[in-house]
Amino acid sequence: MSSESQELTHPSIKDGWFREINKMWPGQAMTLKVKKVLHAKRSKFQDVLIFESETYGRVLVLDGVIQATERDEFSYQEMIAHLALNSHANPKKVLVIGGGDGGVLREVVKHESVEEVVLCDIDADVIDYSKKFIPSMAVGYEHPKVKTHVGDGFQFLKDYTNTFDVIITDSSDPDGPAEALFEAPYFQLLHGALRENGVITTQAECMWLHLSVIENVLKAARKAFPNVRYAYTTIPTYPSGSIGFVVASKNTAIDLSKPLRTWTAEEEAKLCRYYNKEIHEAAFILPNFARAVVNKALSE
Amino acid sequence: MSSESQELTHPSIKDGWFREINKMWPGQAMTLKVKKVLHAKRSKFQDVLIFESETYGRVLVLDGVIQATERDEFSYQEMIAHLALNSHANPKKVLVIGGGDGGVLREVVKHESVEEVVLCDIDADVIDYSKKFIPSMAVGYEHPKVKTHVGDGFQFLKDYTNTFDVIITDSSDPDGPAEALFEAPYFQLLHGALRENGVITTQAECMWLHLSVIENVLKAARKAFPNVRYAYTTIPTYPSGSIGFVVASKNTAIDLSKPLRTWTAEEEAKLCRYYNKEIHEAAFILPNFARAVVNKALSE
Repeated sequence: MSSESQELTHPSIKDGWFREINKMWPGQAMTLKVKKVLHAKRSKFQDVLIFESETYGRVLVLDGVIQATERDEFSYQEMIAHLALNSHANPKKVLVIGGGDGGVLREVVKHESVEEVVLCDIDADVIDYSKKFIPSMAVGYEHPKVKTHVGDGFQFLKDYTNTFDVIITDSSDPDGPAEALFEAPYFQLLHGALRENGVITTQAECMWLHLSVIENVLKAARKAFPNVRYAYTTIPTYPSGSIGFVVASKNTAIDLSKPLRTWTAEEEAKLCRYYNKEIHEAAFILPNFARAVVNKALSE
Repeated sequence: MSSESQELTHPSIKDGWFREINKMWPGQAMTLKVKKVLHAKRSKFQDVLIFESETYGRVLVLDGVIQATERDEFSYQEMIAHLALNSHANPKKVLVIGGGDGGVLREVVKHESVEEVVLCDIDADVIDYSKKFIPSMAVGYEHPKVKTHVGDGFQFLKDYTNTFDVIITDSSDPDGPAEALFEAPYFQLLHGALRENGVITTQAECMWLHLSVIENVLKAARKAFPNVRYAYTTIPTYPSGSIGFVVASKNTAIDLSKPLRTWTAEEEAKLCRYYNKEIHEAAFILPNFARAVVNKALSE
């Protein structure tokens, strides 16, 4: 399966279609037509699959779950990055936990105030093979402000206090190496590693699928942060077509749904394909079925 | 295939999974696990499939395309209905074109000002089998204010001028019996059938998939209506996880993105699972890649 001299295959691909069958979303599966498998090998931590799809460009899959496709990844990367960064008045030092594909880095360095961005991903293979096969995302690594650390994000954070202005946790689902990143001790570490007025975003699952996970992660965040909100973005190739974020600040005085800094319309059009200052606000406005759960979790 | 005395099957179901493979969204397909096929028969106009799914309740499929699942249909039905109805100060007479499953009717009659709602769907089989198999949607037909007409919506409209306050077009995609409902002559008929201050919504495809269809339908709407906007909602089982609407009014003085009438928070919580007055506004806020196309189509 790992040899690149012969045609690669993967058990999730059948009759030329990748199928995202998973117990986290029983009874439903997104499928994408595969043109060619580029990489299929288990890393030290997880199963890593990269394929060229018929209509979604190159696709990164970890443990059978789509992490990013070239066609729609910009929605997730822009929103998880800019929701946090534009909620900070002057972000200089930024940490990305996870995000080994490099897409979040690509977004972070769009902010001129940023002097240094450190990425800590547990899996060197994700970094290496993203660089090799998905340069449209891994371009983020090429920026001179970027430093890369391969290691466990949870452990990494323990060495830092009062250091970062923004920390972005671009993790996979809480059903594998990322499990600890959805729990209260992790949010305590994030809080400790942030400077005053520090802001975080974390990947926080889909309201259509995982309201109880969202409820729990919001409660975990609330134990560490005084100012916690939930926002979401649409993205076709994540399960059920949308994904949410915990957005939290050490500063209780700011409204996270109102960007503290904004680009001009011209800058936005040049820098972003999804994010704009209006959608920053709209991302926090939830349908009734989700709002009820989120408001309850945040008011307790 | 049509006999109900034996186990029903359908060509879109393979190894127990329904697959939504279609040339309108090449290279991708939502799949749903099937528990039991309830109805599978070609009507006079289209292929009609209704199945009980493992995790999405009962599912209505026309010509191989998911129209509604019991688990998430409320998002679409509430938004297409309430975006229009709450943009009218006092809607009394309402017309639904399409919407044979009855779900939009169920939403329309939540507005106490409505005195009569007429539904015109071309396909009696969709109405009849929705009533038989999906009563959670077809309950809309039971309301005393509802009148049903089986026929072609385009032809039906020709007989009415200055009659309706709100017309909702709940159509399938422009690749079958609904094709004419996306073109300029249809919007002219809608305009003629509306009273002063009349408002319409029409199903207007997904920004992630069909920006050129959206561009064309907006231009078609603009030829008839002076006040046209585009809004969207998330919905997991529509292709790419979201669907949009043309919202248009004969009245240029109103901002369609601001509801003219609102329910109280308590009423909203009781009446709606998705719609609220804040999401009415947020539904019009588009990501950059879609906003650029929509704004261009509406400014020409």
